[in-house]
Amino acid sequence: MLPGVGVFGTGSTARVLVPLLQAEGFEVHALWGRSEEEACCLAKELGIPFHTSRSDDVLLHQDVDLVCIYIPPPMTRQIAVKALGIGKNVVSEKAATAVDSFKMVTAARYYPQLLSIMGNTLRFLPAFIAMRRLLEEGYVGEVQVCDVRVYGPSLLDQSYDWTCEELMGGGGLHTVGSAIIDLLSHLIGARAHRVHGLLRTFVQQNRSIHGIRRVTSDDFCFFQMLMGGTGSVSGTGSGGVCCTVTLNFNMPGSFLHEVMVVGSMGRLVARGTELYGQRNGCNDEELLLGDSGWVGPEVQEMPSPHIRGLGSMVTALRHSFQAHEERRSWARGPVAVAPTFEDGLYVQTVVEAVKRSSRSGEWECVEIMTQEPDPNQNLCEALQRNKN
Amino acid sequence: MLPGVGVFGTGSTARVLVPLLQAEGFEVHALWGRSEEEACCLAKELGIPFHTSRSDDVLLHQDVDLVCIYIPPPMTRQIAVKALGIGKNVVSEKAATAVDSFKMVTAARYYPQLLSIMGNTLRFLPAFIAMRRLLEEGYVGEVQVCDVRVYGPSLLDQSYDWTCEELMGGGGLHTVGSAIIDLLSHLIGARAHRVHGLLRTFVQQNRSIHGIRRVTSDDFCFFQMLMGGTGSVSGTGSGGVCCTVTLNFNMPGSFLHEVMVVGSMGRLVARGTELYGQRNGCNDEELLLGDSGWVGPEVQEMPSPHIRGLGSMVTALRHSFQAHEERRSWARGPVAVAPTFEDGLYVQTVVEAVKRSSRSGEWECVEIMTQEPDPNQNLCEALQRNKN
Repeated sequence: MLPGVGVFGTGSTARVLVPLLQAEGFEVHALWGRSEEEACCLAKELGIPFHTSRSDDVLLHQDVDLVCIYIPPPMTRQIAVKALGIGKNVVSEKAATAVDSFKMVTAARYYPQLLSIMGNTLRFLPAFIAMRRLLEEGYVGEVQVCDVRVYGPSLLDQSYDWTCEELMGGGGLHTVGSAIIDLLSHLIGARAHRVHGLLRTFVQQNRSIHGIRRVTSDDFCFFQMLMGGTGSVSGTGSGGVCCTVTLNFNMPGSFLHEVMVVGSMGRLVARGTELYGQRNGCNDEELLLGDSGWVGPEVQEMPSPHIRGLGSMVTALRHSFQAHEERRSWARGPVAVAPTFEDGLYVQTVVEAVKRSSRSGEWECVEIMTQEPDPNQNLCEALQRNKN
Repeated sequence: MLPGVGVFGTGSTARVLVPLLQAEGFEVHALWGRSEEEACCLAKELGIPFHTSRSDDVLLHQDVDLVCIYIPPPMTRQIAVKALGIGKNVVSEKAATAVDSFKMVTAARYYPQLLSIMGNTLRFLPAFIAMRRLLEEGYVGEVQVCDVRVYGPSLLDQSYDWTCEELMGGGGLHTVGSAIIDLLSHLIGARAHRVHGLLRTFVQQNRSIHGIRRVTSDDFCFFQMLMGGTGSVSGTGSGGVCCTVTLNFNMPGSFLHEVMVVGSMGRLVARGTELYGQRNGCNDEELLLGDSGWVGPEVQEMPSPHIRGLGSMVTALRHSFQAHEERRSWARGPVAVAPTFEDGLYVQTVVEAVKRSSRSGEWECVEIMTQEPDPNQNLCEALQRNKN
């Protein structure tokens, strides 16, 4: 039986998500927005019976069994942890920091019977499901290089908010790069152990952000990840996969979203939502999975693979919950592919290592947190960083 | 009046160059090959009256006023310097090391009345001439990012030779990357001051290279250059241009050759030999320069922009020499755009800095040599490097 849903957020993702949920038969009972007006306005638009700006009113709502959290990253952890604490299933966007992600992991470990998955949704896209299967079947042979490019228009909101602020989780790396980091580890079945990156903010002020305000979040980011293998940076033939990711959000127009995996025997390329392949020895690329005619919404501010992946995730959620009679019960199978909160912590750790590398200019190790850091030490590091 | 030409080399570039020279009206009088057989065979094929395996026989040939050097990099410096020393004009491929390049610069400075240009030929390609003009005219506004990708089949020769050996100037970075490094500095009008790179040799042995032999030259290379601006790696808003270059020669099939420049007001992309542009605010890319129907040779082992650029360079050489009556005199105008030996030294310095960065894992400074290093110190460094 499908659970009642409470949605946190009034941004573009929430605006796409609600119709997708409704189309799959989920009832969205409650909507939370930062202000009463925002919540009221969107609830009316999307036909949601209850809206509020107080988070507890959604979390404690008796008809809400599944909580979807698509709010500014700094607020995510608090809502996600609380939702699990009162026994609700959770689909959540990423948090702002690794410490927050770690707290979400701790909560998820404490309530293993509850659904707790990350809302990074590229894994569910049919093109990437097919790509992963073909990689496992050896289409490209031994994987050597992954090369990802996402180009598109500015990710900044109309007015000054968290999207402008690096420390609040704004920027191309955190917003789009994190979905790519998750996707690549999922496709290849390995995690990054060392990363190198360069972040830039080419546009620091624009028509709506000016005066004393400046954008600090990156609009250009470029990073490399070494995955698997022996771990040496300079080693030739150490095995392992080199991933290069280029994100550029100074390119108005439609998004370009390309994920390429090159191996010893061929290559696979996902362009947008389509999958192409070429085996060594063949002269031409073959279309392996076409665009199957998407009927859901299109949003200018999001690359189409993200929107369609979101749609596929919602379908998977339906299958997962439909398998059981009880409203809060769910089957693992249909959502087995989804990133867990542990995956979310890994992704956040890589994001922070790339940012560290951009400051230091050096390769940085990816070391997943195993215990919560002393808050005082945290403060010291923050002070230290501000000095640099 | 057109000078008589002597060509060094029997590889794929020489094989393309000779017919191009002949088509423009140059008489190729002499051909040098490493072995008598190689030279004889190609001379017969291309209708060259004289062939030899002794370099002096070409250099001192009385009908030869222009020497074109397309031979393995370790031999280039010696021939180029000697040719200038006996008063011949020189078009030369890159040398193997910065020290060699510096010696070529010294010779070129000593004989300023002689033509001495590098055979990296992307600058002459009409698409890049148009791109440079549009950049100067402000088509893209302030340049922010350059993104270059060259993908293609293996660069290794059929049998074991210099192309397999990093120290002899083999590998994607040295062979193809150097042309890109030269092109970007020419397009943007600035030089790299810091670089970061990663080189890999994914295929160390193949059907023809096996046993105790291993390929040491890179088949995958990935580097970033910071150009212009204040020079800080981590600085946001320091001005300057970030260039990223991805070279992958593990992708059999036809070459992909894409050079993109992104600025504050738009972007320009050269795909192969065609130029496209998109200004911010326009929904679609426009074709700015189409493929004008190339009638010259096509070579599988070379990306088409390189071949066509070579053709355009030969045409420029004709214009340059036709301007004067005397066989050895030439006009600067038509070849003003060509890379000088000084540019060659810059490119070689960047190549070596990228290699250093791949070993150290750190950003490396690009410092152009201003005097020839003490040969003993050189030895020390080589020993030092071997220890690492």
